[in-house]
Amino acid sequence: METLSEIRSHSGTQGVYRHASSATGTEMTFAVFVPDHAPGETLPVLWYLSGLTCTHANVMEKGEYRAACAAHRVILVAPDTSPRGDDVPDAAGEYDFGKGAGFYVDATQAPWDTHYRMRSYIEDELPALIAAQFPADMARQGITGHSMGGHGALTIALRNPDRFRSVSAFAPICAPALVPWGEKALGRYLGEDRAAWSEYDAVALIAGGARLPELLVDQGLADNFLADQLRTELLEAACAAAGIPVTIRMHEGYDHSYFFISTFMAEHVGWHAARLTR
Amino acid sequence: METLSEIRSHSGTQGVYRHASSATGTEMTFAVFVPDHAPGETLPVLWYLSGLTCTHANVMEKGEYRAACAAHRVILVAPDTSPRGDDVPDAAGEYDFGKGAGFYVDATQAPWDTHYRMRSYIEDELPALIAAQFPADMARQGITGHSMGGHGALTIALRNPDRFRSVSAFAPICAPALVPWGEKALGRYLGEDRAAWSEYDAVALIAGGARLPELLVDQGLADNFLADQLRTELLEAACAAAGIPVTIRMHEGYDHSYFFISTFMAEHVGWHAARLTR
Repeated sequence: METLSEIRSHSGTQGVYRHASSATGTEMTFAVFVPDHAPGETLPVLWYLSGLTCTHANVMEKGEYRAACAAHRVILVAPDTSPRGDDVPDAAGEYDFGKGAGFYVDATQAPWDTHYRMRSYIEDELPALIAAQFPADMARQGITGHSMGGHGALTIALRNPDRFRSVSAFAPICAPALVPWGEKALGRYLGEDRAAWSEYDAVALIAGGARLPELLVDQGLADNFLADQLRTELLEAACAAAGIPVTIRMHEGYDHSYFFISTFMAEHVGWHAARLTR
Repeated sequence: METLSEIRSHSGTQGVYRHASSATGTEMTFAVFVPDHAPGETLPVLWYLSGLTCTHANVMEKGEYRAACAAHRVILVAPDTSPRGDDVPDAAGEYDFGKGAGFYVDATQAPWDTHYRMRSYIEDELPALIAAQFPADMARQGITGHSMGGHGALTIALRNPDRFRSVSAFAPICAPALVPWGEKALGRYLGEDRAAWSEYDAVALIAGGARLPELLVDQGLADNFLADQLRTELLEAACAAAGIPVTIRMHEGYDHSYFFISTFMAEHVGWHAARLTR
């Protein structure tokens, strides 16, 4: 692992790191904020998965999480959203597929299956690296994310119920198999057999018996993607049917941007911290 | 005035606006955050002047001021740092002169004197526009800024003692007449007669009798520009000699970036609010 930068901020260290990933077959860059801590002490870990077009940098610059992470003494890890590099196939001119749009799947269809293995990267490879390289208590992990990253957070948590004590999302894509962004991405990464999509669809996973301990979702009512791409009501109904305790807060006037995310970030960090430190 | 965007954030409105400036002879863009307020209510105004290479957008995206401004009910205004446009002369390849480096002066030397009139813009034209277009109580104004913008905040406050109730700065250029950034900019904008520079030099203004009611400065000790360009010790000495109450906080490990600024932004907003709302 190579350190690209480490900058002091909010009584902690905001770092950016790069490593050769065996999951994606590329170099991968990610950001980690580590609050000040005692020698030998380990801190809980909150994963933040980003949305379409983003890298690790968007939330690092605009997410306003460091004050809350420092106050609650929580490490925040922000991975990239896809493999990168000249060798990685891309979809030129499409912001919602290819680079920046990995959708947290392990692709099975050529040419995507060589590098687009973000599920294995986030579920297996990067946690092992975080555990080895940072003062992280991997027994206390939470996960959140925005939009495509909200989809990632929900589906990864649903498939790994023993790993995460706390799960939240900002404006998640709740049912990708039923919306244009998801139909496009899952169809091309996984093929047209929709049976293969269900493990990457939070609503389908819940319908199939997967469970979360509890869920916090914030969603803006002025979000242009709400009706066609996010479908919060389907997640709410799935949680209700499954008996998953869910708090879905719909916010008048808020959109899909980091102006929305940053508004509620401190509350999410505090919500996770309460569940990770008790 | 044209509204370029208005986005809900932190229980307020983050707007970006453009207008034709008579001071600069160009269109100028600026950002304003207005916390929610009652109809007819006016709120105090905090000016934030940005540093070299910045526009209104840097602090708007990375400054982490909105939560504190909403909590304290303070409007924040973030102007651009220079005139912009194809007609505006620039210094190609120089980040510290020309566009993005207006240094808050009214230039007197050709070709800069036509458009580089940021002093008049910030001191006269933009305040009138803010007063006319926003729910601003112009009897309660504070000013802060970063680096070149810290220089701007200090010098504008020193020249306008009746306008600002509160003044602070992040890593300000304290004595531009004595450091490379300032010698270059003041020499080219104002000419080589250094007598003309003193009204744009905080340390010289204080030595000449100008006063601030009180001053808060945060400065990182890992700031690469501290020794050669910022010279905090000269400001400290000038304030001490003049009897200006000053709190200068030197922070181990912090650099010159928005990772530093955002760390202390909420404290600055609270510090100004305490002086603007009493």
